[in-house]
Amino acid sequence: MRVFIVLGHRARLDPGFSLNDLPGSAGRIDVLCRCVNSAFCLSHDLRRDTELYLVLQDQVTLRFVGSRLRHLNPDERSTAALIQRALAAREQLAAEPALAAAGQGEVESTPGIYISHRGLREVLSEAQSRVEELILLHEAGLPLRQAELAADSGFVLSDHLEFLPGELELMVALPKLSLGPLSLHADHCIVIVHNELDLRFGSGACYNGRRWDM
Amino acid sequence: MRVFIVLGHRARLDPGFSLNDLPGSAGRIDVLCRCVNSAFCLSHDLRRDTELYLVLQDQVTLRFVGSRLRHLNPDERSTAALIQRALAAREQLAAEPALAAAGQGEVESTPGIYISHRGLREVLSEAQSRVEELILLHEAGLPLRQAELAADSGFVLSDHLEFLPGELELMVALPKLSLGPLSLHADHCIVIVHNELDLRFGSGACYNGRRWDM
Repeated sequence: MRVFIVLGHRARLDPGFSLNDLPGSAGRIDVLCRCVNSAFCLSHDLRRDTELYLVLQDQVTLRFVGSRLRHLNPDERSTAALIQRALAAREQLAAEPALAAAGQGEVESTPGIYISHRGLREVLSEAQSRVEELILLHEAGLPLRQAELAADSGFVLSDHLEFLPGELELMVALPKLSLGPLSLHADHCIVIVHNELDLRFGSGACYNGRRWDM
Repeated sequence: MRVFIVLGHRARLDPGFSLNDLPGSAGRIDVLCRCVNSAFCLSHDLRRDTELYLVLQDQVTLRFVGSRLRHLNPDERSTAALIQRALAAREQLAAEPALAAAGQGEVESTPGIYISHRGLREVLSEAQSRVEELILLHEAGLPLRQAELAADSGFVLSDHLEFLPGELELMVALPKLSLGPLSLHADHCIVIVHNELDLRFGSGACYNGRRWDM
């Protein structure tokens, strides 16, 4: 399984934003929508072996589970509407603690999208138990292509803002990798990581008899 | 210079679509907006050495010129608004042929975005004169990573639909390359190509003293 964790530093925690102004009033939820697209969207298919955590303001976490996802389209607006539904479910979660207890702290707002009151520390701990290695994507890291990678890897990325000192402190033990000489958007980083893993662990996938194991 | 040519098979040719429904009424202009993002957006910067052609229904071409681009934000909606302005300028172009003559068939609708009445054949011919090699990105191609590439390369991609037989016929002489074992969205392909070229021709860019020439 592949796991991505994206930190949304300014994303709204309530559903009261306009779908017509995702960069502004929604606190750059457009960035997070593009990360959802990169994590899951294939041409006429979804990546079922991937999970994505969006950690909003270190307080609320949306978990997207590829094997269960439905209703996901590639455009930003419809993804933002799914996030809005999840944030509405969070308000229900806050109002009815029994719901949280039943779902081990999470509720599923639409198929494959779960919301909980968790911050980065809890998410790192859960993700670490699900992959062989958790990696911090950081411009100061070693080149990804030269690194050994497990098929079951997790990657932590930041939105349009730098990691905060407190976040880096929580992740000080993680290996750091970078993708190239330029500073890239988080969603573009996810695309590049997927491609690297596809090429290394593509399960012998082939086109026209030409194997893609490189 | 890097050049990308994306074929938009169903995109509207007039500006009368709703920014609230880019996948539907606008004819999948959301796909093209994401290609604009991938072609130009860096973290807090734009790729100035890139040009992108969006060829709509083989009739109308939008040319985005990185060195002149302004007002480009990464979100789909604001990019769609720029495309809408270009399509409005096209109507002016059709009404006033003198404008087209003055601009050699193109008008600049906002800084760095030009619109013209050109189809794939004309665009291929112009692009071929500007790069060392034009390449067709196609699932049946050889692996990109194993191919020789020039720093000044151009790449032709299709939107969410397959290339049409007539399009493939025009490009029969182009080398074909592919990116991996899975069928990817056009905007994701652009991200991967940029990364490959960044790593090969990164102008000696380095982080923390570690050179990125690989």
